[in-house]
Amino acid sequence: MYETFMKRAIELAKKGLGRVNPNPPVGAVVVKDGRIIAEGFHPYFGGPHAERMAIESARKKGEDLRGATLIVTLEPCDHHGKTPPCTDLIIESGIKTVVIGTRDPNPVSGNGVEKFRNHGIEVIEGVLEEEVKKLCEFFITYVTKKRPFVALKYASTLDGKIADHRGDSKWITDKLRFKVHEMRNIYSAVLVGAGTVLKDNPQLTCRLKEGRNPVRVILDRKGVLSGKVFRVFEENARVIVFTESEEAEYPPHVEKALSDCSVESILRNLYERDIDSVLVEGGSKVFSEFLDHADVVFGFYSTKIFGKGLDVFSGYLSDVSVPPKFKVVNVEFSDSEFLVEMRPCSRE
Amino acid sequence: MYETFMKRAIELAKKGLGRVNPNPPVGAVVVKDGRIIAEGFHPYFGGPHAERMAIESARKKGEDLRGATLIVTLEPCDHHGKTPPCTDLIIESGIKTVVIGTRDPNPVSGNGVEKFRNHGIEVIEGVLEEEVKKLCEFFITYVTKKRPFVALKYASTLDGKIADHRGDSKWITDKLRFKVHEMRNIYSAVLVGAGTVLKDNPQLTCRLKEGRNPVRVILDRKGVLSGKVFRVFEENARVIVFTESEEAEYPPHVEKALSDCSVESILRNLYERDIDSVLVEGGSKVFSEFLDHADVVFGFYSTKIFGKGLDVFSGYLSDVSVPPKFKVVNVEFSDSEFLVEMRPCSRE
Repeated sequence: MYETFMKRAIELAKKGLGRVNPNPPVGAVVVKDGRIIAEGFHPYFGGPHAERMAIESARKKGEDLRGATLIVTLEPCDHHGKTPPCTDLIIESGIKTVVIGTRDPNPVSGNGVEKFRNHGIEVIEGVLEEEVKKLCEFFITYVTKKRPFVALKYASTLDGKIADHRGDSKWITDKLRFKVHEMRNIYSAVLVGAGTVLKDNPQLTCRLKEGRNPVRVILDRKGVLSGKVFRVFEENARVIVFTESEEAEYPPHVEKALSDCSVESILRNLYERDIDSVLVEGGSKVFSEFLDHADVVFGFYSTKIFGKGLDVFSGYLSDVSVPPKFKVVNVEFSDSEFLVEMRPCSRE
Repeated sequence: MYETFMKRAIELAKKGLGRVNPNPPVGAVVVKDGRIIAEGFHPYFGGPHAERMAIESARKKGEDLRGATLIVTLEPCDHHGKTPPCTDLIIESGIKTVVIGTRDPNPVSGNGVEKFRNHGIEVIEGVLEEEVKKLCEFFITYVTKKRPFVALKYASTLDGKIADHRGDSKWITDKLRFKVHEMRNIYSAVLVGAGTVLKDNPQLTCRLKEGRNPVRVILDRKGVLSGKVFRVFEENARVIVFTESEEAEYPPHVEKALSDCSVESILRNLYERDIDSVLVEGGSKVFSEFLDHADVVFGFYSTKIFGKGLDVFSGYLSDVSVPPKFKVVNVEFSDSEFLVEMRPCSRE
């Protein structure tokens, strides 16, 4: 019976996507006598929590919260962070029932559900839980695995090429390109290898209206980008370069991270920098390195056929006896392109 | 207002798919006072036409056909073929209105529409015409282009490989495999190169209950299959081998076609043998040769990734500046596989 309200809460939560990281996006609605009397969402990192925004909005309108129901995507926090605990506010408000999508996996947040029950507030758990977990997947991965959520995004021909026999690769896909910018607007960081920077000199910015640029993470193992000028070094976004080279020098704006440049080291380092999600955008060798660490793979395909050229996973090696590692969860198509979304077959 | 009845006629017509070639599948319903009083379809090559079956069925039930409406997918024939003209039968029956999906493109069939109008029968044309044309696409291609309808079907990994680095290729796809057998049940012929026969020794049969095997067409340019035993030479289907080699010898059951083995020659020869449709199943070089002649491409993809191996279009060469030749018309997915159906971007 709470599904419709939870759907609305999820919708509200999405307004914070890409703005609240590494916090989770959260949405909340207050319901009385079967209708929504107030709404709220977590708008940006450090901003008010969804529950607080909803309750304050109800009060401003002069609504009586006694006996009301709060529907919120994530278990309300019970600790003093950038804002006071939401639990206390909810208990004081006279709200009688709290409905949550999923529990907060972060031990720091305390046990909101238990506190409510101790105060005689009814708690209903697990409403649209799968959808809510998907909404919070960056946060859940970040908190429980202590690494960012990893997405792989490649643009390939029908025959698995990301560049033609001359090495050209720009605009393999076009019609579905806006989706890449939607991703860059949501993921905290994008990551590419030095080869891609040298060859394409990409901006890696989000070209959506009202969009925000992700952190640019560059993997420059040998320091080949040292002392040179590239668009990825521009000051319109935070830039982190992972390199093994002590000598390598980058513009002052760039954060240089000396590292063994293994995927594990990079992910641990990004976690320590509070980066909850990273979109790996290439090239071929980087895809191959990150493939076994991907939480989701977005394969953009054009119906172009190159015959010869650079393979999308040129650094990978497997064979027909190995079962597939990904299951297809969604496919979209437009004109001469399609986008396949894949997730690991077995997830803990 | 006739769409629902035409949908039913299309459904009936489909019962003849793979059985009536090189004739078109045809379905018909007779409607009186808004309800279907009889149905018919063309069941097999040389069998009764759909219109005849429907009219005879109505008569057997003692229905009065005067003033009735006949809805039939294709314009009724007006010539003496294996059966007498349907036009005469319809005119005699007292049917007042004839509704057709599309005109018969075969000049041999005569002009049924004109004949009806000359006899005071109302003719309504073009009902669900696109669907009906798709239903009859083998026939329309065969009659108007004087070549079989060409489909390409490949099974590839995500990265465009049809065999791994060891050359192994069996069971790249599995879950959607039944669709291949559905295709073999409908296409008049399947075609593979000698390389595929040598490597996989496939049967190329239809393993559906009640299925029928397509004609097997083998492209053995150099005669490498000469004097050897393969499953494709078994007598459970008609076999045609195209070869440049005068010396090559095949089992007595096999039809040897001496040819320059160009795609054009092969298609012309198959047309002359009354083959209206061919499903090209590999391998890599054959796909590359037939690609520019394909009326439809079925790409079966597994989420497996080989990294290295045999490219699906290893004999093809294009580049990023060439616009896509195919548009995506449908995508299905199941578990770790997806199937992309593509059609040429511009069709005459």
